[in-house]
Amino acid sequence: MRVSQKFDWEKLQKFCSDVFIKAGVKREDAETVAESLIQADLRGIDSHGVVRTDIYIKRIEKNMMNPFAEISIEEETDATALVNGHNQLGAIVGSKALDLALHKAKEKGAAIVGVKGSNHFGTGAFYVSKAIEKDMILLVLSNASQTMPPTGGVRPFIGTNPLAIGVPAGEEEAFILDMATSVVARGKIIVAAQKGEDIPLGWAIDKHGNPTTNAQDALEGSVLPLGGPKGYGISMFIDILAGVLTGAGFGRYVNNMYENWNDPQNVGHFFLAIDINSFMPIETFKKRIDMYLREIKAEPRAIGVDKIYIPGEIESFKVKERKKNGIELPSKVVEELRLIGDQYSVNLMNAIISEADQHKEALK
Amino acid sequence: MRVSQKFDWEKLQKFCSDVFIKAGVKREDAETVAESLIQADLRGIDSHGVVRTDIYIKRIEKNMMNPFAEISIEEETDATALVNGHNQLGAIVGSKALDLALHKAKEKGAAIVGVKGSNHFGTGAFYVSKAIEKDMILLVLSNASQTMPPTGGVRPFIGTNPLAIGVPAGEEEAFILDMATSVVARGKIIVAAQKGEDIPLGWAIDKHGNPTTNAQDALEGSVLPLGGPKGYGISMFIDILAGVLTGAGFGRYVNNMYENWNDPQNVGHFFLAIDINSFMPIETFKKRIDMYLREIKAEPRAIGVDKIYIPGEIESFKVKERKKNGIELPSKVVEELRLIGDQYSVNLMNAIISEADQHKEALK
Repeated sequence: MRVSQKFDWEKLQKFCSDVFIKAGVKREDAETVAESLIQADLRGIDSHGVVRTDIYIKRIEKNMMNPFAEISIEEETDATALVNGHNQLGAIVGSKALDLALHKAKEKGAAIVGVKGSNHFGTGAFYVSKAIEKDMILLVLSNASQTMPPTGGVRPFIGTNPLAIGVPAGEEEAFILDMATSVVARGKIIVAAQKGEDIPLGWAIDKHGNPTTNAQDALEGSVLPLGGPKGYGISMFIDILAGVLTGAGFGRYVNNMYENWNDPQNVGHFFLAIDINSFMPIETFKKRIDMYLREIKAEPRAIGVDKIYIPGEIESFKVKERKKNGIELPSKVVEELRLIGDQYSVNLMNAIISEADQHKEALK
Repeated sequence: MRVSQKFDWEKLQKFCSDVFIKAGVKREDAETVAESLIQADLRGIDSHGVVRTDIYIKRIEKNMMNPFAEISIEEETDATALVNGHNQLGAIVGSKALDLALHKAKEKGAAIVGVKGSNHFGTGAFYVSKAIEKDMILLVLSNASQTMPPTGGVRPFIGTNPLAIGVPAGEEEAFILDMATSVVARGKIIVAAQKGEDIPLGWAIDKHGNPTTNAQDALEGSVLPLGGPKGYGISMFIDILAGVLTGAGFGRYVNNMYENWNDPQNVGHFFLAIDINSFMPIETFKKRIDMYLREIKAEPRAIGVDKIYIPGEIESFKVKERKKNGIELPSKVVEELRLIGDQYSVNLMNAIISEADQHKEALK
């Protein structure tokens, strides 16, 4: 039995898109959601890639997400807007909010778009990459369902609320920081649990508050915040900006995508877009940021370190590698996707890179 | 010999203010700088309190800061501004930038003010507290001189670039997160070195890249970023927003306040102010945030934990305690301040709380 298979990224994206269309998502929106998943796989963030297709589809089927919802702007000032996703898919809501933030920032110098009534929106890197293409700086925050205890607590209260920041560069790779406010992304524990692997001590506590290396026990317990009280504080402020300020859920009112089948998630997001030209000409900025990145990369290295990396650089290499060689998916995920494909009459097997193709590629 | 003495906060603030006035700072500005120092001492952040008076005065005396500089606005759009501090004292530059950010946010819904040509500006909490008084949410970032290595590096390249966030609440204490992006604030290592105390392992490496518990060796080496690559990434993005984007120094071009006596610091800051009313009525928001904070504080606690704290809560208790009982300063700091007082003919001893007063207070 095969343990994994390689997929052509464009064909896999087409597969996902077709599945979403057949599940009721508008073509343009389906392409957005599929793109957000494939972008995560290409960047090596497997936990946020096509592995999520199954849960998204299930939540559409169970009326827990509404692919027909019309996203609306509820409040607007010169430099801010409040978007209501009305329970549309997160990547669709996030993309609309991003477009609005970029448009307003271009007009007013900078802009904030808060979002309520959304769902899991994929990776923050997906949005900041699009902002970078338009020479904009973007900060994206999202809250998430409860997975981390407050400092001093024993059970999940805050989410691993992620933050992402993207900054365009000139000749250097763009700066893309995309991180959960936990010691590690919960998705990594999900992947470990799926693979039946242990996790390092210090990542999580079990449901009784004890440290654990068992991935499944960790999922039933709490992931720990990054750096103790500092990560707790950062995660809270993300919940405040993305949730309390927008009218979305916060704390216990952000529902768990995997466990709650009675209520929409009501996730909140926060987008801050900055037009660099408001501060200095973009070309001047690009020279400055290139200089900064080059100087860091030229720093003396610790013993055993080959290279000093900029946030997003490893992922950027991975995109090139996976676009060329394919996206490898574990058999469990392949099987899940195949079943979805069967259900919606979309053929997953078309997207597999054959052994002959792989051989040809290797000989190039 | 006494090891420490207690001071009345208002009289100590007056002492600092008078010293700055005699050193050439305008009265109103001197009061701002003194207030920023005393606020840090009141909150228990001794590393950023009156202990900094000496270095500020020395940098004025050596023409490394310019108390006569006229702060200017160099660029402005609807929602952004770029302020040039022209090497004025940091707390004065920061306060002007804050006022501008709050004013613009009130008009446009939200606003960013970037700052270049500034100096060490005290604590971020000083600014966010003022924003909270005006029912505004504020995010403040500042870069700082090199103290932390990049992940994989061996010597300081980035600063412990702090971030602070303030959020007003209704009946609950306001949320105030003010943190360095290092495992601990470098100021705490300075205080340990002054007291001749050791520091915990994991806080810092020495100048050869080895872990150390010696505070002095740590100051000559590097403080470590919070949570490894995540803290490294956050610190970089602060340097980018506060330094690269504003035209201030960044990386090696932010000069060390204690070591460089040839050049101004050229610190950069970044203020983001958000008018809550752009998203929902302030009273609605205050109910939501109170609910959020109360729910966290009511969480079940780990064994041995008396209370779950909100960021800023411990500091807020300390303000009340120190306003009542006085600010205790170690003898080394008292001696330093006394010498400055002698030099500028300002009497420090007036600010000491006498033993008789302390006795009377205890009997109340």
